[in-house]
Amino acid sequence: MNIGLDMMGGDFAPLEAVKGVAQYLSEQKQSPTLFLIGDQKYVEKLVKEHKVPEEHFRIIASEEVIGMHEHPTKALKEKQRSSIAIGFQLLASGKIDAFISAGNTGAMLVGTLFSIKALEGVLRPTISTVIPKEDGSTGILLDVGLNVDCKPEHLNQFAVMGSVFSHLILGIEKPKVGLMNVGQEEGKGNLLTQAAYPLLKNNKQIHFIGNVEGRDILLEKADVMVCDGFTGNIILKLAETLYEITHRKRIQHDYLERFNFENYGGTPVLGVAKPVIIGHGISKAVAFKNMILVAQKMLEKKVLERMKKALEE
Amino acid sequence: MNIGLDMMGGDFAPLEAVKGVAQYLSEQKQSPTLFLIGDQKYVEKLVKEHKVPEEHFRIIASEEVIGMHEHPTKALKEKQRSSIAIGFQLLASGKIDAFISAGNTGAMLVGTLFSIKALEGVLRPTISTVIPKEDGSTGILLDVGLNVDCKPEHLNQFAVMGSVFSHLILGIEKPKVGLMNVGQEEGKGNLLTQAAYPLLKNNKQIHFIGNVEGRDILLEKADVMVCDGFTGNIILKLAETLYEITHRKRIQHDYLERFNFENYGGTPVLGVAKPVIIGHGISKAVAFKNMILVAQKMLEKKVLERMKKALEE
Repeated sequence: MNIGLDMMGGDFAPLEAVKGVAQYLSEQKQSPTLFLIGDQKYVEKLVKEHKVPEEHFRIIASEEVIGMHEHPTKALKEKQRSSIAIGFQLLASGKIDAFISAGNTGAMLVGTLFSIKALEGVLRPTISTVIPKEDGSTGILLDVGLNVDCKPEHLNQFAVMGSVFSHLILGIEKPKVGLMNVGQEEGKGNLLTQAAYPLLKNNKQIHFIGNVEGRDILLEKADVMVCDGFTGNIILKLAETLYEITHRKRIQHDYLERFNFENYGGTPVLGVAKPVIIGHGISKAVAFKNMILVAQKMLEKKVLERMKKALEE
Repeated sequence: MNIGLDMMGGDFAPLEAVKGVAQYLSEQKQSPTLFLIGDQKYVEKLVKEHKVPEEHFRIIASEEVIGMHEHPTKALKEKQRSSIAIGFQLLASGKIDAFISAGNTGAMLVGTLFSIKALEGVLRPTISTVIPKEDGSTGILLDVGLNVDCKPEHLNQFAVMGSVFSHLILGIEKPKVGLMNVGQEEGKGNLLTQAAYPLLKNNKQIHFIGNVEGRDILLEKADVMVCDGFTGNIILKLAETLYEITHRKRIQHDYLERFNFENYGGTPVLGVAKPVIIGHGISKAVAFKNMILVAQKMLEKKVLERMKKALEE
């Protein structure tokens, strides 16, 4: 099992990426081989400094970096020797089995959608976010921005992919699926959610519990919450600022700390044929470690095959 | 100037409504006449107990109450002698100039839309919520649920109505208008926001500052934030739960206290020909007082005429 990691992506690269790799390896008995893609000399120096055990990684040299604010499509096309472009080349050719980066999100999405096929049967790949619930559990919300205009059948597929992820990666036995909506009762909603409801209700692959409202997002009502990417993106970014504001105002509490998305280790793109994990620009060591862990789990538990199977049935 | 108040609406009616009236009158030098609509004997007893000065109110007897969970249209039709139905009869006939209730929200909306005309030129009346900004100022977000499917021209009108409200009622000199969206740049968004952007940009009645994202909702970037009612409803309810959760977890801070929507005094329906203000079911005295104040301000400052004029230009 080979996992590729972009060492040059994110605000604190490559130092925090190296520290994340060191942390990850120190906690694992059996590790996949990590392909560390980045500035060869710089990364070599850092892995030595941080005593990263040599048998567990290979450095893959890249000569360019896609900046956080570059135009994704243009940058990917022009910077073929960038760490992100090389990562997708390795992934597409099968030299690595999963690819992780905290770099330019747009470039990661474009790279994923253009170089990695969608899983058979998937209409729209999607991205999700974890949601810290009041009772300490972890929900997921999807889509959070990849598909701003959705059709009912997209939401239905998000529900299936989210359920498989919630079950296999977050360890929730029988994830409860809720449809983000403006009211509890069937029949409530906009045109999209009104049409999506019966699809979800009749979907035997999921455990649909009905509509969930804004007030339910942080409660334990549903483990998997599906919505169009417009709504999801706004919810995600609102939750992110909330942490920043409470942090700035020095309001401290364990619960608020769970809104620090830096800790979660990025979001996988769901619905493509290989695991791709996109981290926050602000990712630090623990986020890199967690991203490698999620990629490893996705491969070990054959999450994508399970999704494909669930979507076929 | 006559303002009607439903004394039977809300979880703590009529006691908190009476206390709110008492608070309001104790703080005002010149007051409109308040029409207190409710159970005559009960309200009479309470106003005596709370020493509400007699010259400032009249009690209007109602014999029925629409419960918080009754079907709005059915209840309004069948309970003609309910406090809400009587309120709309008085408002439609001109005996009162504004109507306030913390009762069944659906019944208030149905009553408004069916018995009070839309302002000339208004395509869709709307409801808003105040948003507590990090810097202490107060923004508004609209629509928050009355129009779950919107057209671009609806958002454009919400921007105008929101700006007038923000200016005249919240006292913001030149309200900055933002379009709720998933990215900052023009051209980002779903079909609705992509089409709404140029309308807002070319609208001379407002001070449009471009797109705002989920991360900007609580920041000072925009004073008036416009979105479809699906998105707005989810944001509002998420913000409401946030307060409840921090309250339950005993996380205390002045900023979090500002998410206690109980204090804000309800939301006016904007875009109808007469002020109608809908309070939270959980409204207590201070909320009732604030709702009367908002109604009074809306009448004194001729908010609806100003909206009508702004929409014509």
